[in-house]
Amino acid sequence: MYGQTFAAWRRDAAGPWHAYTHHPFVARLGDGTLPRASYLRYLEQDYLFLIHFSRAWALAVTTADTVDEMRFAARTLDALLNEEIALHVATCAAEGLDEAALFAAEELPQTIAYTRYVLDAGHSGDFLDLLAALAPCVLGYGEIGLRLAENIAENPYADWIGAYAAPEYQRVCHEIGALLDGAAARRLGAAADASPRKGRLAARFAAAARLEVGFWDMALAG
Amino acid sequence: MYGQTFAAWRRDAAGPWHAYTHHPFVARLGDGTLPRASYLRYLEQDYLFLIHFSRAWALAVTTADTVDEMRFAARTLDALLNEEIALHVATCAAEGLDEAALFAAEELPQTIAYTRYVLDAGHSGDFLDLLAALAPCVLGYGEIGLRLAENIAENPYADWIGAYAAPEYQRVCHEIGALLDGAAARRLGAAADASPRKGRLAARFAAAARLEVGFWDMALAG
Amino acid sequence: MYGQTFAAWRRDAAGPWHAYTHHPFVARLGDGTLPRASYLRYLEQDYLFLIHFSRAWALAVTTADTVDEMRFAARTLDALLNEEIALHVATCAAEGLDEAALFAAEELPQTIAYTRYVLDAGHSGDFLDLLAALAPCVLGYGEIGLRLAENIAENPYADWIGAYAAPEYQRVCHEIGALLDGAAARRLGAAADASPRKGRLAARFAAAARLEVGFWDMALAG
Amino acid sequence: MYGQTFAAWRRDAAGPWHAYTHHPFVARLGDGTLPRASYLRYLEQDYLFLIHFSRAWALAVTTADTVDEMRFAARTLDALLNEEIALHVATCAAEGLDEAALFAAEELPQTIAYTRYVLDAGHSGDFLDLLAALAPCVLGYGEIGLRLAENIAENPYADWIGAYAAPEYQRVCHEIGALLDGAAARRLGAAADASPRKGRLAARFAAAARLEVGFWDMALAG
Repeated sequence: MYGQTFAAWRRDAAGPWHAYTHHPFVARLGDGTLPRASYLRYLEQDYLFLIHFSRAWALAVTTADTVDEMRFAARTLDALLNEEIALHVATCAAEGLDEAALFAAEELPQTIAYTRYVLDAGHSGDFLDLLAALAPCVLGYGEIGLRLAENIAENPYADWIGAYAAPEYQRVCHEIGALLDGAAARRLGAAADASPRKGRLAARFAAAARLEVGFWDMALAG
Repeated sequence: MYGQTFAAWRRDAAGPWHAYTHHPFVARLGDGTLPRASYLRYLEQDYLFLIHFSRAWALAVTTADTVDEMRFAARTLDALLNEEIALHVATCAAEGLDEAALFAAEELPQTIAYTRYVLDAGHSGDFLDLLAALAPCVLGYGEIGLRLAENIAENPYADWIGAYAAPEYQRVCHEIGALLDGAAARRLGAAADASPRKGRLAARFAAAARLEVGFWDMALAG
Repeated sequence: MYGQTFAAWRRDAAGPWHAYTHHPFVARLGDGTLPRASYLRYLEQDYLFLIHFSRAWALAVTTADTVDEMRFAARTLDALLNEEIALHVATCAAEGLDEAALFAAEELPQTIAYTRYVLDAGHSGDFLDLLAALAPCVLGYGEIGLRLAENIAENPYADWIGAYAAPEYQRVCHEIGALLDGAAARRLGAAADASPRKGRLAARFAAAARLEVGFWDMALAG
Repeated sequence: MYGQTFAAWRRDAAGPWHAYTHHPFVARLGDGTLPRASYLRYLEQDYLFLIHFSRAWALAVTTADTVDEMRFAARTLDALLNEEIALHVATCAAEGLDEAALFAAEELPQTIAYTRYVLDAGHSGDFLDLLAALAPCVLGYGEIGLRLAENIAENPYADWIGAYAAPEYQRVCHEIGALLDGAAARRLGAAADASPRKGRLAARFAAAARLEVGFWDMALAG
């Protein structure tokens, strides 16, 4: 749905992708039965996640090949660091957690695994390797938001769902899908399917989807 | 003038700093006698410089220790990539150079030396090492702008001078000076003068100032 | 025991350090009751660990400040990549696992978390930050080897224990302890205790020790 | 001569390649008329060059995709850091320059430009981008050595020429040529000519060849 490159990676990672997007944490967000403690654990670790995810988009600025790629990554960094994190801080503040407390929270292994894996994809590979590791979070949330939004009457997590189902977020997903397609065309050519990098890129995407599963597991266990 | 850390580095690099800020290119910008061809050469290479300088501020986002340091670096990246480069593109367009032509221009060795040196300071060292290499450009332009602005009647380069003498740019310089002081305090402690890193940091600052001299030389020779 | 810097970090991380060096996996290696399946799981993931740990020592070469620091890191890289991994491959081959199978094994989240955390310490900080994340593995194994070697009669894991208790490995530990002391003196000065970086460096060391605990947990669970 | 990938890049960079391999510095090395002062300037800067070139091969270890690629890069790092630099230090010592003096020498802009450009190729791109920037030095010296060795009777620079014409060095060149071919096949596929990355890779190779020209210029001017 968000471009051809995403569609191909998603298809190759069908198992992990389903496990991620249909995880019990997601299902219980969707039907409103998620325990508050799990949600708070998620929010706390997601704050730390967003810090390092912002760093990964900054890394993308340094590995872009064109000014347009640079600008896109810089805009995403800005949206994360100034809007998404601010939203997070506000939500957490309403629950009694201030930003200094969030920043000082102990980062759990699942958060470390996911965020540092993404950063290393950028350090060890090129812009496209980094995007393959960044894509599951952004686009998976778009998919989850849309699906859960079909039925959210009386759900205490309606705001969360609404944010990712919103046209603004969906537009970002489509733009990122187009960024992936452009970045892939620029590096793999028209016959991306014939590229020897195909397997490694799909493997990165699948690995990031599996790390999302671990992240949900951690929140549910909390 | 822009904080204590800058003052100390500037003092230790007195020779290169003077050679940079009082370079013939600068003097002739100031009295309006700079040949147009030199100015255009400068603009062309400065576009490429700004691309890589933006990358260096993005790298700073990835090496920051606090959310405030991250936000500052991200804001500077945004200002460079969206405002300063746009200004540049507009100036160049008025001279008949479009952005694609700028991006495709051959990057000269002096531009490569300076920009990649700064990036390597960030890759091989920490946030403070990177700032020591980033500071001469930002703060030197502030100093040059202020000095030249004292006397700019009838100068064809009045716009350039005015941009760096302007209160907005001077405010940025003071903020960056405060960023340097905070970053130094956070990594070297109150007694920065006693830190074993003092010499290396000052050497990075001096090296970047010398690379500015090479950049002006290149533009004058063009 | 392996220098002053290590002693200070170890003291500050007393809890995680004990949890790591006295983990049930270690205890059962020591009394010979560790299930073979756990040992094999450990060997498989440790192969992947060593690949990325080698990459981290290569990263150290790129962030060193002196030729001696570079040579030390390069020598360690060589020892890991050519001797330690070769030993590993031989041990695994004896168990029926060839190197291609090892390289293709799915990297588990605990392995990802630990290795990418270490690499990110080097990318986001300086040489000393990287060493703080590298030290727990090298020196903890030295400590564990020595302690377990006091009583290894009839133990099926005597070879593993003997390798880390051996004078050659202990000499490496002392050399790395001296490297840490030199690197700290060069960056923090004589009064390392007064450095504002003290807390962050100790936190990195502690985080790596906790990630060692996760690694043992994973192997035991396998 | 050293593989297909090199042959293609060399052909695309015919102008800079000829300017580099037939530079007056090279011609005068070959006929023995190079002033001693130029040779010493070259040796001094080449020491600093080798330090950073070693760092670039270490960076290659961190960006490799296979264990073989890692081992090759680690072996080259070792040869540079322990053999080639040691040879250099011995040659310089015979001329009265000790290693501490070499390490403390001011790095000239041409040395900075070349070395940091290579490092940035690795940080901004992947293993193959880095190899494209590393290749001109290693393989160009192989070509120069062979050509000059055809006629070196009575030449004071016979040792220098002999080192690069020697079967050992030529074997390294052939191995690196094979590394390039393997790395390209693994990332671009069989039809490297059709890859959209072809132009950028050739441009990196050409840029590094031009930076070699600047390096010779600097030495001759010294």
